Amino acid sequence: MNLNNLKLHQKLVPENYLKLALEAQRCKEIQMKELLEKRKLPDVGWTEELIEYLIQQLAALDNNNFEHKIGLGEREARMASSKEISIKYLRKKLIIFFQELVIRRNYGFGHGIGRSGDLLEAQPKAVGSTIVAQLTNALVLDVMRLQGIKSVKCCFIVPMATGMTLTLCLLSLKKRRPSAKYVLWSRIDQKSCFKSITTAGLTPIIIDTVKRNGQDGLFTDLGKFEENLSSTDREEILCIMSTTSCFGPRNCDDIINLAGLAAKFDVPHVVNNAYGLQSTYLTHQLEQANNAGRVDLFVQSTDKNFMVPVGGAIVAGFEESPVHAVAKAYAGRASSSQSLDVLITLLCLGKTGYQDLVNQRKLNFVYLQKQLEEFAEKHHCLVIKAKGNPISLALELKTLPADVATKLGSMLFTRGVSGTRIVTKACNKTIDGFEFADWGSHESNLDCAYLTAAVSIGLKLPEIDAFIHKLQQCWQDIEKKTNKDTWQ
Amino acid sequence: MNLNNLKLHQKLVPENYLKLALEAQRCKEIQMKELLEKRKLPDVGWTEELIEYLIQQLAALDNNNFEHKIGLGEREARMASSKEISIKYLRKKLIIFFQELVIRRNYGFGHGIGRSGDLLEAQPKAVGSTIVAQLTNALVLDVMRLQGIKSVKCCFIVPMATGMTLTLCLLSLKKRRPSAKYVLWSRIDQKSCFKSITTAGLTPIIIDTVKRNGQDGLFTDLGKFEENLSSTDREEILCIMSTTSCFGPRNCDDIINLAGLAAKFDVPHVVNNAYGLQSTYLTHQLEQANNAGRVDLFVQSTDKNFMVPVGGAIVAGFEESPVHAVAKAYAGRASSSQSLDVLITLLCLGKTGYQDLVNQRKLNFVYLQKQLEEFAEKHHCLVIKAKGNPISLALELKTLPADVATKLGSMLFTRGVSGTRIVTKACNKTIDGFEFADWGSHESNLDCAYLTAAVSIGLKLPEIDAFIHKLQQCWQDIEKKTNKDTWQ
Amino acid sequence: MNLNNLKLHQKLVPENYLKLALEAQRCKEIQMKELLEKRKLPDVGWTEELIEYLIQQLAALDNNNFEHKIGLGEREARMASSKEISIKYLRKKLIIFFQELVIRRNYGFGHGIGRSGDLLEAQPKAVGSTIVAQLTNALVLDVMRLQGIKSVKCCFIVPMATGMTLTLCLLSLKKRRPSAKYVLWSRIDQKSCFKSITTAGLTPIIIDTVKRNGQDGLFTDLGKFEENLSSTDREEILCIMSTTSCFGPRNCDDIINLAGLAAKFDVPHVVNNAYGLQSTYLTHQLEQANNAGRVDLFVQSTDKNFMVPVGGAIVAGFEESPVHAVAKAYAGRASSSQSLDVLITLLCLGKTGYQDLVNQRKLNFVYLQKQLEEFAEKHHCLVIKAKGNPISLALELKTLPADVATKLGSMLFTRGVSGTRIVTKACNKTIDGFEFADWGSHESNLDCAYLTAAVSIGLKLPEIDAFIHKLQQCWQDIEKKTNKDTWQ
Amino acid sequence: MNLNNLKLHQKLVPENYLKLALEAQRCKEIQMKELLEKRKLPDVGWTEELIEYLIQQLAALDNNNFEHKIGLGEREARMASSKEISIKYLRKKLIIFFQELVIRRNYGFGHGIGRSGDLLEAQPKAVGSTIVAQLTNALVLDVMRLQGIKSVKCCFIVPMATGMTLTLCLLSLKKRRPSAKYVLWSRIDQKSCFKSITTAGLTPIIIDTVKRNGQDGLFTDLGKFEENLSSTDREEILCIMSTTSCFGPRNCDDIINLAGLAAKFDVPHVVNNAYGLQSTYLTHQLEQANNAGRVDLFVQSTDKNFMVPVGGAIVAGFEESPVHAVAKAYAGRASSSQSLDVLITLLCLGKTGYQDLVNQRKLNFVYLQKQLEEFAEKHHCLVIKAKGNPISLALELKTLPADVATKLGSMLFTRGVSGTRIVTKACNKTIDGFEFADWGSHESNLDCAYLTAAVSIGLKLPEIDAFIHKLQQCWQDIEKKTNKDTWQ
Repeated sequence: MNLNNLKLHQKLVPENYLKLALEAQRCKEIQMKELLEKRKLPDVGWTEELIEYLIQQLAALDNNNFEHKIGLGEREARMASSKEISIKYLRKKLIIFFQELVIRRNYGFGHGIGRSGDLLEAQPKAVGSTIVAQLTNALVLDVMRLQGIKSVKCCFIVPMATGMTLTLCLLSLKKRRPSAKYVLWSRIDQKSCFKSITTAGLTPIIIDTVKRNGQDGLFTDLGKFEENLSSTDREEILCIMSTTSCFGPRNCDDIINLAGLAAKFDVPHVVNNAYGLQSTYLTHQLEQANNAGRVDLFVQSTDKNFMVPVGGAIVAGFEESPVHAVAKAYAGRASSSQSLDVLITLLCLGKTGYQDLVNQRKLNFVYLQKQLEEFAEKHHCLVIKAKGNPISLALELKTLPADVATKLGSMLFTRGVSGTRIVTKACNKTIDGFEFADWGSHESNLDCAYLTAAVSIGLKLPEIDAFIHKLQQCWQDIEKKTNKDTWQ
Repeated sequence: MNLNNLKLHQKLVPENYLKLALEAQRCKEIQMKELLEKRKLPDVGWTEELIEYLIQQLAALDNNNFEHKIGLGEREARMASSKEISIKYLRKKLIIFFQELVIRRNYGFGHGIGRSGDLLEAQPKAVGSTIVAQLTNALVLDVMRLQGIKSVKCCFIVPMATGMTLTLCLLSLKKRRPSAKYVLWSRIDQKSCFKSITTAGLTPIIIDTVKRNGQDGLFTDLGKFEENLSSTDREEILCIMSTTSCFGPRNCDDIINLAGLAAKFDVPHVVNNAYGLQSTYLTHQLEQANNAGRVDLFVQSTDKNFMVPVGGAIVAGFEESPVHAVAKAYAGRASSSQSLDVLITLLCLGKTGYQDLVNQRKLNFVYLQKQLEEFAEKHHCLVIKAKGNPISLALELKTLPADVATKLGSMLFTRGVSGTRIVTKACNKTIDGFEFADWGSHESNLDCAYLTAAVSIGLKLPEIDAFIHKLQQCWQDIEKKTNKDTWQ
Repeated sequence: MNLNNLKLHQKLVPENYLKLALEAQRCKEIQMKELLEKRKLPDVGWTEELIEYLIQQLAALDNNNFEHKIGLGEREARMASSKEISIKYLRKKLIIFFQELVIRRNYGFGHGIGRSGDLLEAQPKAVGSTIVAQLTNALVLDVMRLQGIKSVKCCFIVPMATGMTLTLCLLSLKKRRPSAKYVLWSRIDQKSCFKSITTAGLTPIIIDTVKRNGQDGLFTDLGKFEENLSSTDREEILCIMSTTSCFGPRNCDDIINLAGLAAKFDVPHVVNNAYGLQSTYLTHQLEQANNAGRVDLFVQSTDKNFMVPVGGAIVAGFEESPVHAVAKAYAGRASSSQSLDVLITLLCLGKTGYQDLVNQRKLNFVYLQKQLEEFAEKHHCLVIKAKGNPISLALELKTLPADVATKLGSMLFTRGVSGTRIVTKACNKTIDGFEFADWGSHESNLDCAYLTAAVSIGLKLPEIDAFIHKLQQCWQDIEKKTNKDTWQ
Repeated sequence: MNLNNLKLHQKLVPENYLKLALEAQRCKEIQMKELLEKRKLPDVGWTEELIEYLIQQLAALDNNNFEHKIGLGEREARMASSKEISIKYLRKKLIIFFQELVIRRNYGFGHGIGRSGDLLEAQPKAVGSTIVAQLTNALVLDVMRLQGIKSVKCCFIVPMATGMTLTLCLLSLKKRRPSAKYVLWSRIDQKSCFKSITTAGLTPIIIDTVKRNGQDGLFTDLGKFEENLSSTDREEILCIMSTTSCFGPRNCDDIINLAGLAAKFDVPHVVNNAYGLQSTYLTHQLEQANNAGRVDLFVQSTDKNFMVPVGGAIVAGFEESPVHAVAKAYAGRASSSQSLDVLITLLCLGKTGYQDLVNQRKLNFVYLQKQLEEFAEKHHCLVIKAKGNPISLALELKTLPADVATKLGSMLFTRGVSGTRIVTKACNKTIDGFEFADWGSHESNLDCAYLTAAVSIGLKLPEIDAFIHKLQQCWQDIEKKTNKDTWQ
């Protein structure tokens, strides 16, 4: 609606008052125009009002929201409650079923994104949903570049978990490499990453991480990778799968050299960058990996990097074709809910907002490390200095027997510390028929129990203080309750 | 909060007034108690207020909504805007990024559903999300039984398109049948159904539908199925895939006899029941198919059957194990958004509400058929009487050349009729390397162009009138503009 | 925002898709344009989406919602929570007070309506609030004319109770007639109507209603009015105050003849039309009264006629000057909350919607009358046929002693029937020093107890059935519990 | 709903998970219990979620929100849209009018507050509304004491402007002093304060403020007050009316000595404390005035002190009876909208939140004074040091002719500075028949033009910087455009 063009009666409001008020709207119009025309993240975040206004305007462009629509034949986007649902007679009474909650919470969007053939295709019936999807993809691309992945070419959001999205990537590669069956996988003890391979019907070749002399943490076993690449029929190898963000003391995989191997042996390379977008260290690894060799696809979570509810992932690549192939592999139309949450969040933050969060995270990491080191010194533990892991820290609980370490973990959980993880020796596990020694440790030779603690984007400094405080309390409790002599 | 236990000062409100008001709350408490304890769809729909109250109570049980939570280490459910995000200094100014929109529209739910290993597992951190997911699954199961699939044993919602969910089903079967590679598929010209096979890395064996003497519409070619089952190594056949709901004049597949063949040859049978839950004819086919033979899994869309936004599907089965296997195949945690929309909608409708919608749909179908037949008589067309399709009708446009028929379709679309489909001869198509003659017609011998029109749940009677009106207008326009002599 | 003028990249959405979607918006633009330019109630009600869109657009025109506003010096419209309230340091922690609830529920409106000198004046800072107020007043005027008060000249909403608004009307008359001290008041036993006079510092001359031979119900004692007008110094009479809508068996005052007397004696005439706008019988009385004589001001409630929350009234008149004088008497700026509720409701209903409600009310009245008469016949009561009361009915409880009648009332209340009233003999009351015999009955000679039941706009037919049902139950209970012999 | 008492099936969620989640709810229950039982402002502000939860629970106690209510006879709280409004037939079509907006934004509250006789009475039908009103009054009382008015005895919110509320106070005094007609009024040039007297039908005796030797600003002319009190028949004096908060350079009235005079001459004393609650200097004046003499009633605005939308005021007193008399004077039931906004805001802020805002305001005042003094030094103006005005500052524009000063004001307004005020000489005005020389200046001997700037609660520091910046820009513009020589 353009109030500028209306001729309002003096009785409604004097013209000169109106003129001034309308002028004050202009900056909003410019913000919207720039966003839609340039498809770049605004420098400064938008107000909630403006964000909602944009979304409502876009939703109005979907045909389920047209006033004079004839929905015959449509099987979707007819949300229960479109204001005239059903009427029943119950002793003379008319009762009308009605609810607006679903419509309201979805802003009237119902068509989802993409068309059955391709998640990136525009929907003629759903112009607003199409814009939401494409605009969000464009803004995410902008964030990626901003974060240092300067060569990234294209990306899109899929409303599936990161694990399932990796599965979809593998399946799209499989279409091009029909005889391939193996995925060379640098072990990371995170279940859904591993399951992404088995669910795709592929066979993982598991390559444990290894320790290096003089360096803390766990590293990619490049030698084993090369060995396997040499010894296996290349046609049978679907790809290398590596991981950037992970629980300490595992480091980010050496994706630069893995990319080199991928190029050398001409096999695809898929990187699991689950929560790596929030760390400029990890994003630069990706950028360099691309320069040094071959990275076909890299996948990240929307929730872990953009603080939206769980359930979405971003597929990205340094070339268009492999990314488009993934979009084309998704069978059916997908939910637009995840794109909408990301769009709202990015517009709210703006460039500076996101960068502030990223910087704050870095400072928080340094702060946690310092606090943990002080704790370690007092309590004869050790913070492992895994330099290739800028997000998660591991605290070796040298003095604690496995059962006591496990107990420490559950004490922390009961006290509201829900994000730490205790890894103990000899905890073996079988997943989809594959056996893992020392599950949780990314290797098969765990020395002693440790506790991991991650510093994610959005964590607030006081939460670190509170965590250290709880950790000290639990530790003291444990010292009191258990016979300390039996520990050592 | 239990206001019953409070001792309010007389100054706030007289005790006897309060007592009466509190008594009036009791029926709501009973409604909530029954729902949560019995996990059955209430007979009568709930008010919006009560639905929101339940959801808010459940959301409060997720730990991201606890007041004294320490989020250290958590990588998810930390929604941008948790009221203290970030602060920046801009010439002495403090600007706070802030938004509540994402939190509000998700009611504070952020953890998604399931755990990395299994979509059906409870999350210790997210009790509310867990209840939402499980309760919704239970209510959906109740609806299925209500609709006539009395033997259905379990089901769950996946936040993926029906097509992708079929892919997931196939992949879960593949885990059990590692050497299988073929899917015997009764042709239905709906892209994402077909892509669900190729995306899974499997090879479809396409079996065209066929005409039968003396019967209208297209039928499953049971002979070809048996032929293929006999001639192919059984280990190499992953499953039979059939479809119930479809565009006319294709009938629902003969799933009863296909189930028989599946049992006879001991191969799995997956049924694509995309929008079949809304039709008791189709649900009874499913129930009988299970009685007559083998149905391992059947999949339906949440949006098409429950009028929620696009993006979710329901996996169901007559036994627990194949369904659980699918839940375990999903790698990662999934969005709870789709479950929430379904929960709200089902609570709003209640049993009687859903059944009213189902009955109304049936009446609407009869009404459309009658209207179309009247139209056909006037304009020398023919309504194909495909008795096995209770949802979609086909109107043969015998007198129209293909290009004119196509034009009719786009005229209807421009006039707001977005759900009809025009199918014309000689429109061949290649998808993922497979060629389809007469794409859109489910067969390779299309006689003449036709128009399909579906009557879905939620369609309102006046929309049918409006459609017929527009159809007549367009027809007249076409008669005027084209030289009618050239048609016939 | 005018999406029409944007140049969107093909990647965002294809141009032809966008064009079609934008065309579908045009009807909304026309609806808004017509409303704002013509200031008439639309024929058909608007959708919620469109209503909210209009309100948001208007709210954006208030300067507290401008992005670059400098609020120095402003003492209002700075709502707690304007997104940066206050920050405090609590052990390194930053805690931000924040809430959006007040802003949200007021759509960002904060400036209220009017200026200190005049409720009808435009506010330069608050263009949106000004339009809301003036537009709502214009729509209400339209409804009044539609309802039959064709000669009404102007009106406005005051966010005060009807009683307080009558006080304000009296005070504004007092400014013009400084030596006046009496109000000639046709007795109606509704407390706030009477208090409107005493609160204004004026002295009521109470004229009881009277019975007429051969006619049911209570009537205005025109004789007494004329007597008082003749015998009192005209300068000392501030005005006549009459009432239209009231509890039966009191009839609407004979405002036509009162208007005649007012004209004849040249004294102002104020009509309390509290819930009379919903009845075309009462509105026509008003119209005729104006034709026949003098009506200076008439006041009605917003909640009782437009089904919005309690707290607003409408001052209206057949000439501008007395109405404007009332607007100028209000000291200060007033809340815009009531105008907003009325605006939303009227836009939602539209002309036809409001008229449907009005017609339905009439039918409901006839239905209740019939039901009550059936009840009366069975139980030896009598429905009083007060032809001049089209809203409220009285059921004489001839057979019930006062205490039993009172008990019946409280039994009904406990069973959820909260709107009926039991009037019994000998219930005297003193208000502000004035004594009323048989308070509740509008006269001083009540014969026997009765029960009143009103049929207001918005009442639903099934509520009448439920009421009759409860009445029967209570009656039976009473018959059982009390010794019936003692009654008669 | 008490989830604690439910027996949930293991399938819904494991018992131990649920137990932990329920324990986390306990602190919320305690917060609610304390609030309702103690009726004191919580120390720390509540979350939005908890506030909304409380409000929803209370709203459910009003009978219009009961599920099984029979509304027959009710004339209010039947909000248009109660989900079954009206149905009409339009060519076979059923169209249902429906809207939830009004209900939603009022949280379902419709009954208003008070009963026709008394704003402080409980409503049996509206237990929730009653609690909202009484609880809010209790919290406001708590804030008043917190702010230093330790002896305040009771208070309540009226949904009227401060001016109209003063009128109501005067009218309630008039009931007790029927022969009184004069109000002794210490002149303050704020229109609605003056109109509060004339609207009440009373005659103001205007006592100009005066300058004092050696002290900056304008002071109460105590001599003139005593003179008038001595010379007028005491019965004819309704009350003294004084003002605390005002535009500089007028100081707060000397209410301590006025209270002394009121006691000495035994006349009531009403204090207009419009925005004085935010300043502890002014609240201490009130407390001391009560100790030193007589203060019957003092009135303040809700919007100006609590940052809610315009439209409410608080009547308070050091004894119950005069306050209750005001509550009883309001004719009819009043809107609960203002109470609700105040309740939400106070709960959001908590004690510490409100005090932080109060402290911040003080610091902002000092900051503005310093900035203005710097500006004044540069530009040959003068900041008037009115020590009795802690909120508003006056900058004497000695060098500017009246028309140029006026122009400066409008330039500032156009640039978004909407809260400053320019006062110039010889601007006389007649209000309701009373003439004011130099209107705006509170006196009749204005020396030269000045600009006032107030520092209200909620103002943010950067707004002061921005104001100074704009002021400098405008000043420079003026210097350029006007011939400076002609000024001096």
